[in-house]
Amino acid sequence: MNRTVFFVSESTGITAETLGHSLLSQFDTIDFEQVYMPYINTDLRALALTQRMQEAAERDGARPIVFATMLNNEIREILKNGNCFYMELFEGFVEPLSVELCVPPSRKSGQSHAITKPNFYTKRIEAINFAMANDDGIRPDNFHRADVVLTGVSRSGKTPTCLYLAMHYGLRSANYPITEEDFERGDVPQLVWDCRHKLFALIIDPQRLQLIREERRPNSPYASLARCQDDIRQAQQIYKRLQVPVLNTTTQSIEEISSQIMKMLKDNLDNGIEPLTGKTP
Amino acid sequence: MNRTVFFVSESTGITAETLGHSLLSQFDTIDFEQVYMPYINTDLRALALTQRMQEAAERDGARPIVFATMLNNEIREILKNGNCFYMELFEGFVEPLSVELCVPPSRKSGQSHAITKPNFYTKRIEAINFAMANDDGIRPDNFHRADVVLTGVSRSGKTPTCLYLAMHYGLRSANYPITEEDFERGDVPQLVWDCRHKLFALIIDPQRLQLIREERRPNSPYASLARCQDDIRQAQQIYKRLQVPVLNTTTQSIEEISSQIMKMLKDNLDNGIEPLTGKTP
Repeated sequence: MNRTVFFVSESTGITAETLGHSLLSQFDTIDFEQVYMPYINTDLRALALTQRMQEAAERDGARPIVFATMLNNEIREILKNGNCFYMELFEGFVEPLSVELCVPPSRKSGQSHAITKPNFYTKRIEAINFAMANDDGIRPDNFHRADVVLTGVSRSGKTPTCLYLAMHYGLRSANYPITEEDFERGDVPQLVWDCRHKLFALIIDPQRLQLIREERRPNSPYASLARCQDDIRQAQQIYKRLQVPVLNTTTQSIEEISSQIMKMLKDNLDNGIEPLTGKTP
Repeated sequence: MNRTVFFVSESTGITAETLGHSLLSQFDTIDFEQVYMPYINTDLRALALTQRMQEAAERDGARPIVFATMLNNEIREILKNGNCFYMELFEGFVEPLSVELCVPPSRKSGQSHAITKPNFYTKRIEAINFAMANDDGIRPDNFHRADVVLTGVSRSGKTPTCLYLAMHYGLRSANYPITEEDFERGDVPQLVWDCRHKLFALIIDPQRLQLIREERRPNSPYASLARCQDDIRQAQQIYKRLQVPVLNTTTQSIEEISSQIMKMLKDNLDNGIEPLTGKTP
């Protein structure tokens, strides 16, 4: 069974998309055709969208689902009158919240993802630049300036995770790749030991690692299964000595790993371990 | 007035946080203390959180707001019984959606940000790697492999925007920095012209640019206001010749710019201009 889903918003549509995805993930037996519809901010655009709804309804043999965050009543009514199952994601919450806070809502659209807090926005952009400049162990002498340091073997997911931590949470993220050199020494440099309180290790299934490395350097010793297994085994021995949390990137997304890291950093903070300069958005 | 807000979830908390932020942005006169509470997946953790709610209520002189996406009824009841204004973000939608789809919800938590669609997840990770490898015009000969190419003067926001496009939408993003060399020639290389159908230009307010460059290279000619003004003026002349969309990073966040770019790429696609290999998540 196939159903079309529209994520609709007057501005970026990120909120509609995020909550919509979460809700759809509860119905994983259905194949959803997902259409992203930001900037539906005029009657004309809304009307054109109702036309697309009708087409989808005819194609699927069932009306499309619409997840919307509309603040403008007129545009909302146009969409609701289309051939669709309309779910307004904001409305049920704005009024009760307004009563609780004793303040009327601004009703301005596009506030969620605008630069409404310049300080936190600047912090995020700076964190991204920091992550770019401190990727792949380029500057271990900068680790003391980082909020979080990741370690792992080549292609275990350090870079995407660092970038997510920077982009989403504004954390200054650096990473240290564990290589042959560390295995030979049986240890990582002192600069890595020094940041153990904010160090997290990544692990990955050797079979999965082989696939990833194979794409990067086909038929190389680097991509062989034996080498991947060996790298992981030796890395795990070092992690054990370091006694740092180990997270698995085979089964977990960068979002999941990042939120776990955030939680552990915060728990450390609550327990009085080393201040965390990053903060939640 | 100060109010504490808890974003609570059994797993990552990203959905609670995204919708919660959107809702709070409607009440911009209030100063919210925002606390991120992922992985509240046991009775014990829920009880500890009710204790924190009580502390917040006493500190603020008003009960905290809780934005939660809880699928477990027992844990939800514990939180609801705490001293808080509890808003369940999932519940109102899951049941009606279930009726519309004629399928019961899975009630599994943590599905929204897990790797439920390995193909799209792999695409995102590959897009991040592509963005890293094609940052700052390192490989203009790779532009034909990109889904989107950004251009702009140094520090106008190309890198963070490319990374967001890659991370969020899975778009293979590259960028070309406009420099002195292009100004002298009065033009950009042919490889940039060749990707005009997927090229977007970034512009930034010269005063803002000066601040950013000043942080990077204090008191340098590069960071002087005159140089920033000149760079922007000359870049704009080139944009005019290229006739590409120009987006302003002074006033718009990387989320806003990215979603506009996605929309324009999709509009091009709808109009039969060059296929877009990236897709919405």
